[in-house]
Amino acid sequence: MTPAARLHGDAAARRPGAPHNAGMHIAILTFQGFNELDSFIALGVLNRIKAPGWRVTICCPEPRVTSMNGVTVEAQSTLEEAASADAVIVGSGMQTREVVASDALMARIRLDPARQLIAAQCSGTLVLARLGLVDGVPACTDLSTKPWVQAAGVEVLDQPFFARGNVATAGGCFASPYLAAWIIARTQGWEAAEAALHYVAPVGEKAAYVANAVQRIRPWVA
Amino acid sequence: MTPAARLHGDAAARRPGAPHNAGMHIAILTFQGFNELDSFIALGVLNRIKAPGWRVTICCPEPRVTSMNGVTVEAQSTLEEAASADAVIVGSGMQTREVVASDALMARIRLDPARQLIAAQCSGTLVLARLGLVDGVPACTDLSTKPWVQAAGVEVLDQPFFARGNVATAGGCFASPYLAAWIIARTQGWEAAEAALHYVAPVGEKAAYVANAVQRIRPWVA
Repeated sequence: MTPAARLHGDAAARRPGAPHNAGMHIAILTFQGFNELDSFIALGVLNRIKAPGWRVTICCPEPRVTSMNGVTVEAQSTLEEAASADAVIVGSGMQTREVVASDALMARIRLDPARQLIAAQCSGTLVLARLGLVDGVPACTDLSTKPWVQAAGVEVLDQPFFARGNVATAGGCFASPYLAAWIIARTQGWEAAEAALHYVAPVGEKAAYVANAVQRIRPWVA
Repeated sequence: MTPAARLHGDAAARRPGAPHNAGMHIAILTFQGFNELDSFIALGVLNRIKAPGWRVTICCPEPRVTSMNGVTVEAQSTLEEAASADAVIVGSGMQTREVVASDALMARIRLDPARQLIAAQCSGTLVLARLGLVDGVPACTDLSTKPWVQAAGVEVLDQPFFARGNVATAGGCFASPYLAAWIIARTQGWEAAEAALHYVAPVGEKAAYVANAVQRIRPWVA
């Protein structure tokens, strides 16, 4: 079964009419000053899926970005390519307030929850707020970013993960696997999501880790 | 108090006689084909420490390395520099068996548990086995690498973390924070380790996450 064929119903990320053999692209928006945990944990978990055409990219405003701790990585896709991705995770970092204050940068980010799964990690929730994607929807973020998301008029939840429809948010770096598992569950099914989480979980804690993660995600998946 | 001043007794990572203002360098050995989770989770958690001179680097055999999922990062230190680091984490990846089979590469890795804290994540344990650092010591690794570590004559434990003296091993990507917390606990104290873990834990799960992690690490810290 192709990834496209596994998508289901109204909530599917696949654009109607897209060819079934086009594969599935998940873009992880990663800006200058990014938090390594928030971009790479999601990338690592998502890459557990070996379905044909499944592609996960670090998606950046420039050819190279340097993290909050001085790690320089090469972009694997551009911000513009996120517009055509099937799923997008907005990563977090030290400069998110500068990102949302930049009209030039924000104009390059075109997301559409009608045809994309959209997820934000920690301060990435500020980007969704700026784009109007969490209007009237409660959201998760990290404790440092919480006041800024609240100031944008968004109710912040004291929980690691929340989703409504095609938009999900997570708070705390180690909630990143929940965003990745949500995207996998929505597109490849729960069994695939649980297998991905099981692989990355600590030895000797795998069953407990998966059970807790599923408990965190499942109530928010229609 | 400087990081050096916080070091304690025989088990200290600080080289005897090193100047107290020299700071503390933790090198994360990161090879071609590396697992992003295993290098970057440790890096992210370790960088929560803001002590003067505290420095964490992605330490590579070449100026750039590309991960198992095609992410290219720039080295922040060389394999040779790991010899003078205060602590070393050996990361994991798809090519660890090739790494340990390379006499040229292995000759560049000089570790000394008498004056360094040494930790290995997942297949990184194979590197420690090759270096003779887990002779007669049980160790942790991931499920895929387990047979190779056993074939090297090392007992593999069904638990996420184990340490004896200055050598620690962890199994399963999400056991990486345990290695980082062990290094922090050994050099900066338990309070600092718990604070670092608390920061990265999921919102709404922070106390439970820290309690579990401490339970995993504490029995193996003298």
